[in-house]
Amino acid sequence: MTNSVSEVNVALLGLGVVGTGVAKVLIQDSNYLQSVYGKPFILKHILVNDLNKQRDSFIPQDIITNSLEDVLNDDNINTVIEVIGGTGTAYTAVKSALQNGTSVVTANKELIAKFGPELRTIAQSSGAQLLYEASTAAAIPVISSLRTQLSGNKIKSIRGIINGTSNYIVSQMASSNAKFQDALREAQDLGYAESDPANDIEGTDALYKICILATLAFGVDIKPEDVYKEGITQLEPQDFSMAAELGYAIKHLGICEVSDDQLMIRVHPSLIPTSEMLSKVDQVYNAIEIDGNLSGKIVLHGQGAGQDATTSAIIGDLLSIKANNESTASRSTNGPALKDIKSLITKYYIRISVTNEPGVLAKISTILGELNISIASVIQKDGTQSTEVAELIITTYRASEEDLQNALKQIKMLPVVRTINTILRIED
Amino acid sequence: MTNSVSEVNVALLGLGVVGTGVAKVLIQDSNYLQSVYGKPFILKHILVNDLNKQRDSFIPQDIITNSLEDVLNDDNINTVIEVIGGTGTAYTAVKSALQNGTSVVTANKELIAKFGPELRTIAQSSGAQLLYEASTAAAIPVISSLRTQLSGNKIKSIRGIINGTSNYIVSQMASSNAKFQDALREAQDLGYAESDPANDIEGTDALYKICILATLAFGVDIKPEDVYKEGITQLEPQDFSMAAELGYAIKHLGICEVSDDQLMIRVHPSLIPTSEMLSKVDQVYNAIEIDGNLSGKIVLHGQGAGQDATTSAIIGDLLSIKANNESTASRSTNGPALKDIKSLITKYYIRISVTNEPGVLAKISTILGELNISIASVIQKDGTQSTEVAELIITTYRASEEDLQNALKQIKMLPVVRTINTILRIED
Repeated sequence: MTNSVSEVNVALLGLGVVGTGVAKVLIQDSNYLQSVYGKPFILKHILVNDLNKQRDSFIPQDIITNSLEDVLNDDNINTVIEVIGGTGTAYTAVKSALQNGTSVVTANKELIAKFGPELRTIAQSSGAQLLYEASTAAAIPVISSLRTQLSGNKIKSIRGIINGTSNYIVSQMASSNAKFQDALREAQDLGYAESDPANDIEGTDALYKICILATLAFGVDIKPEDVYKEGITQLEPQDFSMAAELGYAIKHLGICEVSDDQLMIRVHPSLIPTSEMLSKVDQVYNAIEIDGNLSGKIVLHGQGAGQDATTSAIIGDLLSIKANNESTASRSTNGPALKDIKSLITKYYIRISVTNEPGVLAKISTILGELNISIASVIQKDGTQSTEVAELIITTYRASEEDLQNALKQIKMLPVVRTINTILRIED
Repeated sequence: MTNSVSEVNVALLGLGVVGTGVAKVLIQDSNYLQSVYGKPFILKHILVNDLNKQRDSFIPQDIITNSLEDVLNDDNINTVIEVIGGTGTAYTAVKSALQNGTSVVTANKELIAKFGPELRTIAQSSGAQLLYEASTAAAIPVISSLRTQLSGNKIKSIRGIINGTSNYIVSQMASSNAKFQDALREAQDLGYAESDPANDIEGTDALYKICILATLAFGVDIKPEDVYKEGITQLEPQDFSMAAELGYAIKHLGICEVSDDQLMIRVHPSLIPTSEMLSKVDQVYNAIEIDGNLSGKIVLHGQGAGQDATTSAIIGDLLSIKANNESTASRSTNGPALKDIKSLITKYYIRISVTNEPGVLAKISTILGELNISIASVIQKDGTQSTEVAELIITTYRASEEDLQNALKQIKMLPVVRTINTILRIED
């Protein structure tokens, strides 16, 4: 469709920070974009909530509207860019556009994670394209690479630091021994975290993104609510110093990986060996490691959010829309079955506060041993004769999540155990 | 063309290590590739030098030929994969195929760096596609990202660790204080360096790759022989320890960058602050940092060579070939003018052996000062009263390459100066 016309008429839905960035590039860089794409992009409509709000001077007033209906009824529109967010108006608008055969570029991770399967099916039957590079890690070309250059690979795993707010907080906790609440407040002061940070620090944002990547890589439809998820709120400063002592960094990861034709998806903080690239990704940066059977591990690193970086991804998608989507690489939907977190086999880091008395370790290690969990190392902290409470930091060899959770239940009931402070999975 | 047929007939030119990897995937993963692309790839011909050589058992004998003519005259071929290397038969074959309107996927960096402009012109006029992701950094999706997702960005700079052999050697010199010759021998023993390593250690391989990336990013045709190039043979162990003391890693970089609408391309070892991702890229890994006006700095990291990784890039290109190349993003060819290295403005690291006597630094700093070069730091090594020779490690503030070279000429002639050991540019 796009190629049969001499120009591409674009409707922009939403004029927040990202929408303003997209409008600016479409208007101010129009000659440049035309030189790249071969035909001009014409911004025809901008959908807003409030018609009377003060706008930047480069926004033409005459294309501003608050009527979604008017936009969707304009048959001249070739492409809709959706940057409203959420699953209300955005869902209605994207679905209608695709049903009309109009291609959609969206930055909306929640929409794609929750309604991607339905929207893709509609797009396939109408011949429209649905592109969403901006939904995951902004300008980092992870979705386009999975779709095209890496599409001949059978993907073994994807591991991503895909929430900049969380990564800023864990970076600060690691480098300055900050408490979680203090690091969060600092992130809020710097504008890296919202006043209600729940989506970021509880892992929901990362969950949406890893579901999107898993769907692309493995051709399966995933319900975000079926995926195991932890945030970073339980982490304490001593976990970072202990991890460093053991040779690891703590990072909040979204992970999807296939073994024995079964797919495991999970979102939680992990210990990563300091020799690996992912352990070196600090501050608000994002990075995604894709392990393909041919490519080996590819790590893509950059800013995962922000006006310009998100605009880069949206404009990149716009320039990628082809005359037809027949040859757009898409994996078969006969993907692997989804595994429960209980069947995870990995190494663990456990930090426990115990009464400082003889025989404590024997009791804990007996429980672990009975559940086939072997101890790899034990470090005791703060444990002098004069203090009442000691901390045990135990790392294990590979064990099943189910066994580990059963062991923890028993350990928790030991009279000598005060609290189980932190459980982290070790990814190496 | 590809989409108007029900299958894609492929001719593979070359059956070395990479050719064998490509043939294996085309044959053994044919169902998988068909599920991704929507139609099957049929391997019709494999061009070899020696018909009688022993082959892997999965290679069908009946498609092996040593006649390039027979392959090129087969009108059923839709795509040619060239993995011969060099600019002899490879040049003839790629040119003929493109003239016939047959799309070409190649891994040949020398061919693309030297003859890319001519071959692209032929492809454009015949409607064929010329794809060469495998020519630079193997499976790392740098070329496809520049072509598509990042194509709306005005690229400010690209800096790449794009020769795995060199990176292995400098990594070893940094971590184990090895001498260049010893690190090279180790790389050869491990199969990371060839018996004649000149192309890698003298920077020629990196030169070809940065020319390819610069052409894509800036839309200019570059002659590799016009580009400033240094290898790593002059580096000594003490440069690595000094760099570390100053907060830098030494990496061999290919760099292209635009300022004031002028393009500078250069290949040489550089000091990179240890806070930057590129400084953390060790062993045989490659990484490319792309700085776009919207995207910010994106770093793509992975294996830059090897059978599987190169095959990944070739198969990725094969899956990317579209029915027509009308909408393939291509930058305007009105790119910026090429600047000479003499006009480079950067910081420098200089290591000089001098006679250990009073007043030496005054003489050197007078020369630097007269040429407007300000000293940022001076460290003196091995310089006790009892030794005759001392080493001065000088870092400068930003200065022009021309001024620096003039200063060095004068410094070299000072009677107190024994040798100028190392000059490195600092990239920060």
